[in-house]
Amino acid sequence: MIEFISSPANKLIKEVASLKQKKYRDNLGMFMAEGLRIVEECAASEWPVQLCIYTEAAAARERTRRVLDRLTAAQCRMVVVPEDIYNKLSDTEQPQGIMGVLKKRQATLTQMITQNNKIPLIVVLDGIQDPGNAGTIIRTADAAGCTGVIILRGSADVYAGKTVRATMGSLFHLPVIEGISPEELIAELKSVNVNMLTTSLQKSDIYYQVDFKRPTAIILGNEGQGVCQELIEKADACLNIPLVGQAESLNVAVAAGVILYEAVRQRAIL
Amino acid sequence: MIEFISSPANKLIKEVASLKQKKYRDNLGMFMAEGLRIVEECAASEWPVQLCIYTEAAAARERTRRVLDRLTAAQCRMVVVPEDIYNKLSDTEQPQGIMGVLKKRQATLTQMITQNNKIPLIVVLDGIQDPGNAGTIIRTADAAGCTGVIILRGSADVYAGKTVRATMGSLFHLPVIEGISPEELIAELKSVNVNMLTTSLQKSDIYYQVDFKRPTAIILGNEGQGVCQELIEKADACLNIPLVGQAESLNVAVAAGVILYEAVRQRAIL
Repeated sequence: MIEFISSPANKLIKEVASLKQKKYRDNLGMFMAEGLRIVEECAASEWPVQLCIYTEAAAARERTRRVLDRLTAAQCRMVVVPEDIYNKLSDTEQPQGIMGVLKKRQATLTQMITQNNKIPLIVVLDGIQDPGNAGTIIRTADAAGCTGVIILRGSADVYAGKTVRATMGSLFHLPVIEGISPEELIAELKSVNVNMLTTSLQKSDIYYQVDFKRPTAIILGNEGQGVCQELIEKADACLNIPLVGQAESLNVAVAAGVILYEAVRQRAIL
Repeated sequence: MIEFISSPANKLIKEVASLKQKKYRDNLGMFMAEGLRIVEECAASEWPVQLCIYTEAAAARERTRRVLDRLTAAQCRMVVVPEDIYNKLSDTEQPQGIMGVLKKRQATLTQMITQNNKIPLIVVLDGIQDPGNAGTIIRTADAAGCTGVIILRGSADVYAGKTVRATMGSLFHLPVIEGISPEELIAELKSVNVNMLTTSLQKSDIYYQVDFKRPTAIILGNEGQGVCQELIEKADACLNIPLVGQAESLNVAVAAGVILYEAVRQRAIL
């Protein structure tokens, strides 16, 4: 059954609109996944879409129609709204007229350790501030075959609209844990015997001289300050990416790609 | 001598304001480099800053003062403007009250081939649309010790404010050629015997199985369509980055980092 809602004062509409703010995402335990491509990705994953909001103009397009049919078949609540209401809900500059609303999920470290019988390769975000960087790192982690992503307290919200979109759907492919502290991370990783590597410019090894064939977690730090001191001290090894030219640093998502693909290379070749 | 300009109708102010548009950057052959960090980088490079525009509030800060002194000593034209005029000139959301205006430059392939007696490593941008991606690739190329960057016609303008800022100053560290066609690129690279590699998903080798120790140019393609067919056909080899997980692609700046740092690794180790 499809519902039509045309009043901006409707309770559901107001609730969905509130999801643009972290406070309400946390309170309600829900988040938005916006845009055709992203909704396709969550519809194809095993993460249930609770609610789909769309416009008639969007539904008139063939590709959108297919994802709407799929969601309807999966018992998703389907709501049509007028263009002006959709645009108020939307978090993007050029709304595509379709969004999903999903429940936030918290994966477990056990999932990350046992996933697909792969040797664990986990990415940890420590204080990454930019949602675009956080999302791009999750996309890169997915591409490199990582078994999970952990986002420490104080990083960009993984469920913010911009982060979700920057993951290009990879958020729905990977177990994600968010909101834990450095102490919890250290205790958890030690308990399952996962090698903890951090990036650091001091006293560190060149990244390609480090062994990535063991179960490994790679900690990436804040854009300006890097990884926090506590994690650097407790790490099994620190690594750096050599700066051959005059640039003072790499973008953190680029650094994630360089390190993760060295792990891919070593695991494929050695 | 410091000039004070307080009229928005002033000819110089209008000219500088026009540099936010590519048409006027092309007509005047000039561009803006905005923000304290970027102005520091160009002041420290051998690329002369023609004009520096700043506010008194910015000049009151110690670090800004140092770069203003340096530019004054280098005979740069110094202009103080009121806050409201500065904000009109500015291309950023949080203006820092200091910008440089510089002449565009066109490097030569000879510079890229002979730079610092290094084995040439050149990055080519073919239709990269996002200024943030283009700038981040230039920053990454600098970090990886590349000897030059070539931006083909139809890519994001390297002299747009957002591109310049995303380079984090690396634009001033590297020879850059812009606005040439694929045919010109092919002819030029063949004439100096530089190996031409493109990224491509079809009929390609895994990037870490390719030899980067020879003089090499790496062509990166448009975010959606990839590298144009003509360049793929004329390339000496095509390479791909394996997608181990479910992600359909990597961000192009991340891909640049992965490939360029494989070149760094091979040249350091092998």
